[in-house]
Amino acid sequence: MDLFEAISARRSYRGMYKPDPVPREHLRMIMQAALDAPSGCNKQTTSVIAVDDPALVKHLGTMLERDDFASAPAAICILTERKIAYRDRTFYIQDYSAAIQNALLAITGLGYESCWVEGHITDADQIGRQMADVLGVPEHIELVAYLPVGLAAEEGNRVRKLPFEERAWFNGYRL
Amino acid sequence: MDLFEAISARRSYRGMYKPDPVPREHLRMIMQAALDAPSGCNKQTTSVIAVDDPALVKHLGTMLERDDFASAPAAICILTERKIAYRDRTFYIQDYSAAIQNALLAITGLGYESCWVEGHITDADQIGRQMADVLGVPEHIELVAYLPVGLAAEEGNRVRKLPFEERAWFNGYRL
Repeated sequence: MDLFEAISARRSYRGMYKPDPVPREHLRMIMQAALDAPSGCNKQTTSVIAVDDPALVKHLGTMLERDDFASAPAAICILTERKIAYRDRTFYIQDYSAAIQNALLAITGLGYESCWVEGHITDADQIGRQMADVLGVPEHIELVAYLPVGLAAEEGNRVRKLPFEERAWFNGYRL
Repeated sequence: MDLFEAISARRSYRGMYKPDPVPREHLRMIMQAALDAPSGCNKQTTSVIAVDDPALVKHLGTMLERDDFASAPAAICILTERKIAYRDRTFYIQDYSAAIQNALLAITGLGYESCWVEGHITDADQIGRQMADVLGVPEHIELVAYLPVGLAAEEGNRVRKLPFEERAWFNGYRL
């Protein structure tokens, strides 16, 4: 798929998924896209686990308490390590966010749907830590986001956004 | 350009730029790509200013004290507003990082080079605020990153990354 077509087509899909499995070859392309993203001072703070074991992906999906996300046949779990980039600066949030965006574009480019699930995972109830434990992720690595992957079983929709002119300008603020 | 080709070709270019101007049509495509990124709870916390006025882009570039970045004929300034997404949660870093990644892919796809300049801008010396003042950006909006845009005048290089197997696994950590 063309780059600009993928950027424009990507959406946050909140609907049920078809049960069709996602081939390993496609999951690898999505994972590689995530790893191809830049990281502050090249610290490579992001790592990924693809889940396609039917029982495991269902178990993780159920922990999210969302039937739509839980119906996906596969998922990408985004892991991060809060490494110092220099002095006291960290860029791990920037790093994993760029990796997620690349993964979402890859998912879109391959014809699948997904949704950036993060807030529910990193809230006070620590669902991310529980999911990490299921996957054997050590304590110093955090599971911060979950991307369901699969074919849409419903139409879904798109959020409305402000027009270009209210968020983008040339050579000065609101010029 | 093909999506996966752009994802793989994107790099952080640290070298001098050719003086050839970047057409407004291309800058608009890069800006639109940034705005097409998702945002937590659709708060659309990111906005962008493209700079292509020769005196202004030179002035901003000089503030970075880097001859290579200062030689670019255009730049994208990334702005953010720390809006609450829900309760006490903010996702503005995630939002602008996804927007930057989209912009970097668009820059690559159009044949230009760039580099995600952030640490130097948001350090204690507040260069980002000084740049924001030059652009008339109000106090509650922060300028957090600067993306030079232009054609490479040098070969440049790429960082080395860990192999796939050390950052990506199936169905469990390091499985």
